[in-house]
Amino acid sequence: MQKNRTNIVLLGSTGSIGRQTLDIIRDNPDKFLITGLAAGNNVDLLREQVKEFKPRFIYALKKMKAPPGTNIISMEDMASHVDTDIVIAATTGKAGLSPVLSAIKAGKRIAIANKEVLVMAGEIIMSEAKKQHAQILPVDSEHSAIWQCVQGEDTEISRIILTASGGPFYRNTKSTLKQISVEQSLKHPTWKMGKKVTIDSATLMNKGLEKIEAHWLFDVPYRKIEVIIHTSSIVHSMVQFIDGSIKSQMSYPDMRLPIQYALSYPHRFPSKLPQLDLTQISPLTFEAVDYGKFPCLSLAITAGEEGGTQPAVLCAADEIAVQLFLEKRIGFTDIAKIVQGTLEKNTNKSSPSLQEILEADRWARETAMKIYKKSSFKYKRK
Amino acid sequence: MQKNRTNIVLLGSTGSIGRQTLDIIRDNPDKFLITGLAAGNNVDLLREQVKEFKPRFIYALKKMKAPPGTNIISMEDMASHVDTDIVIAATTGKAGLSPVLSAIKAGKRIAIANKEVLVMAGEIIMSEAKKQHAQILPVDSEHSAIWQCVQGEDTEISRIILTASGGPFYRNTKSTLKQISVEQSLKHPTWKMGKKVTIDSATLMNKGLEKIEAHWLFDVPYRKIEVIIHTSSIVHSMVQFIDGSIKSQMSYPDMRLPIQYALSYPHRFPSKLPQLDLTQISPLTFEAVDYGKFPCLSLAITAGEEGGTQPAVLCAADEIAVQLFLEKRIGFTDIAKIVQGTLEKNTNKSSPSLQEILEADRWARETAMKIYKKSSFKYKRK
Repeated sequence: MQKNRTNIVLLGSTGSIGRQTLDIIRDNPDKFLITGLAAGNNVDLLREQVKEFKPRFIYALKKMKAPPGTNIISMEDMASHVDTDIVIAATTGKAGLSPVLSAIKAGKRIAIANKEVLVMAGEIIMSEAKKQHAQILPVDSEHSAIWQCVQGEDTEISRIILTASGGPFYRNTKSTLKQISVEQSLKHPTWKMGKKVTIDSATLMNKGLEKIEAHWLFDVPYRKIEVIIHTSSIVHSMVQFIDGSIKSQMSYPDMRLPIQYALSYPHRFPSKLPQLDLTQISPLTFEAVDYGKFPCLSLAITAGEEGGTQPAVLCAADEIAVQLFLEKRIGFTDIAKIVQGTLEKNTNKSSPSLQEILEADRWARETAMKIYKKSSFKYKRK
Repeated sequence: MQKNRTNIVLLGSTGSIGRQTLDIIRDNPDKFLITGLAAGNNVDLLREQVKEFKPRFIYALKKMKAPPGTNIISMEDMASHVDTDIVIAATTGKAGLSPVLSAIKAGKRIAIANKEVLVMAGEIIMSEAKKQHAQILPVDSEHSAIWQCVQGEDTEISRIILTASGGPFYRNTKSTLKQISVEQSLKHPTWKMGKKVTIDSATLMNKGLEKIEAHWLFDVPYRKIEVIIHTSSIVHSMVQFIDGSIKSQMSYPDMRLPIQYALSYPHRFPSKLPQLDLTQISPLTFEAVDYGKFPCLSLAITAGEEGGTQPAVLCAADEIAVQLFLEKRIGFTDIAKIVQGTLEKNTNKSSPSLQEILEADRWARETAMKIYKKSSFKYKRK
């Protein structure tokens, strides 16, 4: 193990954020060393990554033989290993929850790209992190923007303005939203991302999850977090301070910038990203959100405000509903219906334990599937 | 003298910035105490201000009797007084130069709204401030924006983007600029300011002076400072960091915000200014500058890059030319001609002393008047 380099454990190395994180580490071999890689089922790509980055530790959900020079250990063990400096949580869904908690208990610095971790268990995560002096760093472009804007500021945030591209259907009328196909939904106008988050962006569920995430990361009440449509995704978010001054952070939409900032924090280092040409991106537009057209956003905000197990139920039901949509078993507007139905059936519990959150997750998946099966949603043929 | 309050010496209290500074101090009597007020010729307003704020020290260029409870002392003496915490230099032209230097020598915190101080003597001011551990804080909205954006950042600035409203004539064709009247020039589209700076905004000379000011305040080379037209004056300026990330600061155009930030720094406190409604200010536009149409901007940038006594000559010649324009003795486009003629006649001297700068100022005023008198500029009747 070389000194002077930051030892990185990357959880979710084969996903979109994982691969972009490795791009940055590839370009900065003097600064970073990959000590652990964890993936789900894409063991072929994981094997390639192991060849290139030679981590000591690996983990895959799918069974695999340890390549020479590596040890298969759990995500929890690599996240909390004594030699680990930064854990990047880029898994999806609840898979990141337990390793992130292990990393927190070991007082690590954790860059969170897996928003479900904070949405499901924000209260536990943030209070544990405070107790253990673990640092939670955002990776999402919006939260990175907010975080960059609050550097050096010691006074209260009076408003967070979360920008939303609006996704591919922002200009659609409410009635045409029903007919939207999976293929159309996967074409995001400004960001290239994984399938789940791309659909969540199209329903604006993603922005709702981000509002919950912002609430926990920056300790700001929901009423002070505003969502605004900014279709070109140049201004990644804004922060207003008590004197009325607003700071914003801008760049072309490219996840490598917020990932790199989380790695370089509190410093910055050069990147290969193109310099923003302001005359080219002009004009920048801002529009009020049409909540009526995108019910997932309101569902998420309400779930966040209610707290307890509702955000975990929201995440789980949404995961099931998006999967059903991707499998062409329900329509685009049915996603919100399944999520809403599941949330309405949940008996909420405030300040739940991790066990209770995981139980709510299990219950919500089951309930969402039941709602789907009992409902009149039509199977859509390919 | 009460403790816990910041003792403020305000130089230029009867001008636009001075009066707005007093608005903020009036609203925050628990935080600030005016200990000194200095004005030019508007002694009637100064007397009113003395009644309200009860400063220990006053100064006026025009002779006046000391109101009861006050002492008339020089601006240099009040700026460097042992009880002074912050000096606000809101005088115009070179009048602020000597008191600012006195304040620097006494290691004070100095908020600079008088851009000529930095344009004329940036090298001396900044090196003296460094030596004496005096803090120079910007008050101009653009420089305040840059300053707010660099808080908490420890890496190099890779680009400063100075926004310019373009003034009232940005959409005019080059040929129609000649016909512009004083009355038209004094109607700035977004900012309410004094006459001199309003005309300087219309010629874009002001943006050139600001580029020189930014160079000195933030120690950034001229080639890394870009000027961009942003007609609505919402984004007050931007900073790009080495990773490509850009931060900007926004608000409705109102000088009370940057003035207050200079007073509250490094903290912030609430203001009465209206909260920015992003949907209302949308769209934000950015356009390349038409340097051919506004020669004053190029003249200023070149003078800044040449350094030495050229920036002082620029300021002095511009002051004369703007005065001639305000007196309707020359046309709008003649301002640049007088400034250019004066700059061309100057024998530049690098790293000039304060004495040499003041001598260049005197010479430039004389020369600008000579150029006016010898020239074919026509006297314009009212």
